Amino acid sequence: MLNNQATLDLVFHALADPTRRAIVERLTRGPASVSELAAPMAMSLAAVMQHLQVLEESRLLRTEKRGRVRTCTIDSDVLARAEAWLTQRRTFWENQLDQLGEILAEDALKPKKRKRRKP
Amino acid sequence: MLNNQATLDLVFHALADPTRRAIVERLTRGPASVSELAAPMAMSLAAVMQHLQVLEESRLLRTEKRGRVRTCTIDSDVLARAEAWLTQRRTFWENQLDQLGEILAEDALKPKKRKRRKP
Repeated sequence: MLNNQATLDLVFHALADPTRRAIVERLTRGPASVSELAAPMAMSLAAVMQHLQVLEESRLLRTEKRGRVRTCTIDSDVLARAEAWLTQRRTFWENQLDQLGEILAEDALKPKKRKRRKP
Repeated sequence: MLNNQATLDLVFHALADPTRRAIVERLTRGPASVSELAAPMAMSLAAVMQHLQVLEESRLLRTEKRGRVRTCTIDSDVLARAEAWLTQRRTFWENQLDQLGEILAEDALKPKKRKRRKP
């Protein structure tokens, strides 16, 4: 079992390519065979297979062979782990910004100290 | 201006490395100088600078130089774009699964057709 850091390395690497993202998009509409995935792509079957291997290594994609047909399915749990990492970072940063905004607003409401003139 | 596909290529590539994710995590706590970012890392300043360059190219990170200090800030809009892509894919897939579940449930409730015996 890969730890979370290793999973995120592989998932983000897998998603850093437009062909692999197109495959993920296609698979969110439902499982598909390798030849169905390859049909609309302007590349060789071997090139598509390489992309599928990267997706499978990241565990975003599972394949199952029945007879001569290999069917690919998306694993939405793995997709959700990458999403959760991004959501946590973004919300943490937005909370920091909110807190900073509150501090600045409180500061603006405080009465300003005036310098006393020496008698 | 980069299009969304090119942005996603660069953002996911930038996030596919544990050091760069650690830098993003640190920056969600607030802006930091290059030397502050480099201090806890077990690598040369030059190696850290290379990681910062990858993050800057992806626009996840903005830098500003004041005098001799270069300060880095996270761009949460870019983080949110990658997050939105993942959220859309995951929710689309979950809706597909829900619809499939409904179809199967309806099918199970339908009275089964019995074969008529020939008279």
